[in-house]
Amino acid sequence: MNDPITPGHRGELEFIRRLRTLLAPAPGRADPADALGPMPVPFGDDMVALPPGDRPLLWTVDMLMDGVDFDSAVHAWHAIGRKAMAVNLSDCAAMAVLPLAALCAVSLSNTLTMDNALDLVRGAHECGQRYGCPITGGDTNSWDHPTVVSLSVAARPPHDRQPVRRDGARPGDRIWLTGPVGGSILGRHLTFEPRIETALAISRDLRPHAMIDISDGLALDLWRILDSSGCGGVLHEPTLDHAVHPDAFRLSQQDHRPAVEHALYDGEDFELIVVLPPDAPAPACERLKLLPIGQVIDEPTLALETPAGQRRPLPVRGWEHFR
Amino acid sequence: MNDPITPGHRGELEFIRRLRTLLAPAPGRADPADALGPMPVPFGDDMVALPPGDRPLLWTVDMLMDGVDFDSAVHAWHAIGRKAMAVNLSDCAAMAVLPLAALCAVSLSNTLTMDNALDLVRGAHECGQRYGCPITGGDTNSWDHPTVVSLSVAARPPHDRQPVRRDGARPGDRIWLTGPVGGSILGRHLTFEPRIETALAISRDLRPHAMIDISDGLALDLWRILDSSGCGGVLHEPTLDHAVHPDAFRLSQQDHRPAVEHALYDGEDFELIVVLPPDAPAPACERLKLLPIGQVIDEPTLALETPAGQRRPLPVRGWEHFR
Repeated sequence: MNDPITPGHRGELEFIRRLRTLLAPAPGRADPADALGPMPVPFGDDMVALPPGDRPLLWTVDMLMDGVDFDSAVHAWHAIGRKAMAVNLSDCAAMAVLPLAALCAVSLSNTLTMDNALDLVRGAHECGQRYGCPITGGDTNSWDHPTVVSLSVAARPPHDRQPVRRDGARPGDRIWLTGPVGGSILGRHLTFEPRIETALAISRDLRPHAMIDISDGLALDLWRILDSSGCGGVLHEPTLDHAVHPDAFRLSQQDHRPAVEHALYDGEDFELIVVLPPDAPAPACERLKLLPIGQVIDEPTLALETPAGQRRPLPVRGWEHFR
Repeated sequence: MNDPITPGHRGELEFIRRLRTLLAPAPGRADPADALGPMPVPFGDDMVALPPGDRPLLWTVDMLMDGVDFDSAVHAWHAIGRKAMAVNLSDCAAMAVLPLAALCAVSLSNTLTMDNALDLVRGAHECGQRYGCPITGGDTNSWDHPTVVSLSVAARPPHDRQPVRRDGARPGDRIWLTGPVGGSILGRHLTFEPRIETALAISRDLRPHAMIDISDGLALDLWRILDSSGCGGVLHEPTLDHAVHPDAFRLSQQDHRPAVEHALYDGEDFELIVVLPPDAPAPACERLKLLPIGQVIDEPTLALETPAGQRRPLPVRGWEHFR
């Protein structure tokens, strides 16, 4: 009689009860808590245990808001949850580290049904599981405003490797992309695959000097590498043209802005910008389908170079919150 | 010319630039990144490093929303930030673990000034620092809806000790509180001090069987201990009366509900419910100012017992989101 968890009850306790089932480790798969030996903390306690280990742990967080990062009037909740996880996994890719576990905090709009809410978490959890990163805990809330979902992910570098930082670029280094960019708003911002596998291969085979994932646009995120490395960069027009995504051309036909502008300034591509030493082995770069776009220079500017060798400064802008 | 970080510019980049200064380790204080040895990750990279170690790490997250968990029309942003950190530290207290580092994710209302936003983070950071738990990274966003702030905290048990879980209560155990409860809405929900020190002393001196912090109300959070431990509990009226906070009486004068109802059902007290074996040494309990309120029983019910020995069932309810 005291049990507030009544089946069919639409409330936080029922939601958490269902999450417990939803998030249970799949049979035959190792529960990350198993690695804790004598000290597993069960689901639903005040905190969640992370596996111990001799390698450093890293963690990251990303918060997504309805109407800003997704549109629940258009996008399915499962796809929204998937994106909330994938943007965090993209941060793991940017550092070439292996994701381990996630926490999920939500402020659910009171207009959501229980199924909507479960779809949201399921989308995040299933995406995470594919990369060894199940949701292991979190915080559920609701209110009368649009839904906010925040995922936090812990990760660890592979054995004998360090995380790839963004401040290691040096003049003479070459700038590459893991794939073409621009026009992600046409759909890829929701369906992109985090470049974890490619990132791990890059860090194993190419000893990159710096990496970052493109969340706010190629120009702004490249600038973040260059600025924190104390140098500048020049993009080569012909090679940059080869890195423009077909979606950028499609969008260009709609809004009559040049496709290359979309490639430079659209956010949420989630491809990686990779800075490699000039002698990086070409076959490995080719095998990983890396696209060359430019090179690191001494002067603290960002420029675009024409085939004739003329350089013009490239404005650094992109998606910026809280303007 | 390329630098988008213009002093005085009201934007995310400027906000992050100021956060970098705000969150820099105080001179003479160890940077948690120092513990990482050869692999510090600088502020502002894609992820943040947690110190490695042979003891298991735990982590937790709590999300607070304007209009639900605080009211920015009434409360100062510094106090709001402080609360966002303190509720996470309270989870650390509930498991008797030492907080290490925090991540802060925010969706700032576009009505906020830069100073508001900095006060919010400063309030959280300063509170965390007092407990050895600085903010080390995060995610900043803004939108046209009320502010949401989510703190995530990583922690570690003291040497040679295990985290105190909520599922270890056994029939015959005694139920205690770390302080009086009820009426926190009169102000303590914002100004409470997380019971980390008391919790560490309890786990060192009293070998508790279970602990939880009161976020959703004494009855509901006690039920969480009892339910996950597979038993029930009985609260003794006279001793419970001694655990009613003066604020509960004040509130009772306003709303004419019995003060003990406020003690049982008000949320956000953030005192700890502590379950101790019946032979726990009385002097230590007294020194730690623990208040006895009842005892664990076999039957899976929650009841209130009068001095005459009559038991009546106690409804289990409290603050529940997403109803």
